[in-house]
Amino acid sequence: MRKRPIGLPDKDTWQLIENNLPEPSDGEFLIKCEYISLDPAMRGWLNDSKSYIAPVQINEVMRAGGVGKIIKSNNKDFKVGEYVYGQTGVQQYVITDGKGYHKVDPDLAPLPMYTGTLGMTGMTAYFGILEVGELKEGDTVLVSGAAGAVGSVVGQIAKIKNCKVIGIAGGADKCKYLIDELGFDGAIDYKNDDIKGRLKEYFPKGIDVYFDNVGGEILDLALGRLALHARIVICGAISQYNNKTPIKGPSNYLALLVNRASMKGMVVFDHAKDYAQASIQLGQWINQGKLKSKEDIYDGIENFYETFLKLFSGEKLGKLVLKVSEN
Amino acid sequence: MRKRPIGLPDKDTWQLIENNLPEPSDGEFLIKCEYISLDPAMRGWLNDSKSYIAPVQINEVMRAGGVGKIIKSNNKDFKVGEYVYGQTGVQQYVITDGKGYHKVDPDLAPLPMYTGTLGMTGMTAYFGILEVGELKEGDTVLVSGAAGAVGSVVGQIAKIKNCKVIGIAGGADKCKYLIDELGFDGAIDYKNDDIKGRLKEYFPKGIDVYFDNVGGEILDLALGRLALHARIVICGAISQYNNKTPIKGPSNYLALLVNRASMKGMVVFDHAKDYAQASIQLGQWINQGKLKSKEDIYDGIENFYETFLKLFSGEKLGKLVLKVSEN
Repeated sequence: MRKRPIGLPDKDTWQLIENNLPEPSDGEFLIKCEYISLDPAMRGWLNDSKSYIAPVQINEVMRAGGVGKIIKSNNKDFKVGEYVYGQTGVQQYVITDGKGYHKVDPDLAPLPMYTGTLGMTGMTAYFGILEVGELKEGDTVLVSGAAGAVGSVVGQIAKIKNCKVIGIAGGADKCKYLIDELGFDGAIDYKNDDIKGRLKEYFPKGIDVYFDNVGGEILDLALGRLALHARIVICGAISQYNNKTPIKGPSNYLALLVNRASMKGMVVFDHAKDYAQASIQLGQWINQGKLKSKEDIYDGIENFYETFLKLFSGEKLGKLVLKVSEN
Repeated sequence: MRKRPIGLPDKDTWQLIENNLPEPSDGEFLIKCEYISLDPAMRGWLNDSKSYIAPVQINEVMRAGGVGKIIKSNNKDFKVGEYVYGQTGVQQYVITDGKGYHKVDPDLAPLPMYTGTLGMTGMTAYFGILEVGELKEGDTVLVSGAAGAVGSVVGQIAKIKNCKVIGIAGGADKCKYLIDELGFDGAIDYKNDDIKGRLKEYFPKGIDVYFDNVGGEILDLALGRLALHARIVICGAISQYNNKTPIKGPSNYLALLVNRASMKGMVVFDHAKDYAQASIQLGQWINQGKLKSKEDIYDGIENFYETFLKLFSGEKLGKLVLKVSEN
């Protein structure tokens, strides 16, 4: 990162730098990165403000999760030829002592899936809806950003748990995808539908769990349609991340009082001790055909700037991944 | 209520009507009301909108809790001379079948206290801070509207539970009262202090529980100072009740995400089954001198309009009570 962005990142935000490859020291190993995870949360890391994680510093490598192959190793626990996932940053090669890395098996699932449904995306969805959202069988569930990486998994998990699930997404194609491909009970096209009216139709008795990835106006409309004892999971606020003005607060927040409801924030890292168990469950659902994983893969580290913007333009479907080098 | 108010209620909102006293039918009894409870929540009942309780209708008696003496009875469970608390409405006499009424003992505590610390006010504070706020010993606690009926009890309960308690109130006198009389650890005068700066001083490690009676700017500043896993109890939003413009949503709400915090609404009626147990505990604390109960008592049903406005002008201290007839 060369310069902190105001609003949407632009070309001046980034700089592509080439260096010679250093050698791994004792206890270290060298990874050739293949796929980099692109996530809305990364936008937050660019701001110089107190948050759940330190901001990326100017002239630092942009933080990102990535998966790659070990090509040199001076660490007996990580062998050449093994694949690992970790915070590689947006780079083609990385040297590490292995802290925060775990091994992944390219024979069990395609590599890009380890950045998504079998990675932080899946973990966020899993713990967000089941633990933070305290999902119960039969709940009525609303998910925003529903065609996105996290939202699509959240909705499918809620379907597996026998809930009624409605997704909000932008455009008819995404809405069709939610219903036809992912099995959602309904979809609302926020670009063309009367959101308030559709919420009333879909939730005659109110929303039990609202999983919010977007914030802004949609959060307010969901607040206006809560059931008693509803839970709102605040996972993100993509509509607000590139604001140049202050964030829009939910003016309907007193619906929490009226409905004795709660609004709870989540950060996936808090659930690290249970990642392994969640991975097994998610993998099982994928193998059983109950959970579909969709990655939208773009190519070339030099295309990071433009690919990153697809997170906010609404044009991608599922998990956004950047392939940064060949196997 | 003669007319729904926009903004602050004015003289046109109310009408004082005199009627002849009807006779109680079989199973009913007649109460002579002595003290009426005046609460910020009553402002919400004047709006024609969906809430946790039906709005008061035009030409209906204004809803209010009250305490009075039974002067005629055709109900064997309620005898002449006994005192009761219930939804009497703003009137000097009321006939009821006793549903929703319970007896109170004027020898155990002064009658006005049954509208406050030993009534709904005390229940709201008790369940709000202990159950909804999940208070733990040693928590750092911030209370807004701290010199008010609910806030002053909330803060004192938190002190009893060995927490560090800071109150926000308007003016130096109220702040002095919080510290000197109620034993708060500190107070912030929202009219004169730099609230943000004072919050930073008082909560170097952040706020564990914020009990919000006011909403608006103060809610935003508290959000900006949360500790990890903080709980915000939304009990009211007195700064917003008389708005003629839309309610101000908390633009810092993403602090919930950053701090994995929760914001939860409460309505005291949900805890009705535990009122008796809470009353005993509150009574005990009062007898032990650990909990002080302060009522600000005004006189005359004809002064209801002006007394009611004292809820919003910031000039009263403690629980606002209207005496509507002599014993």
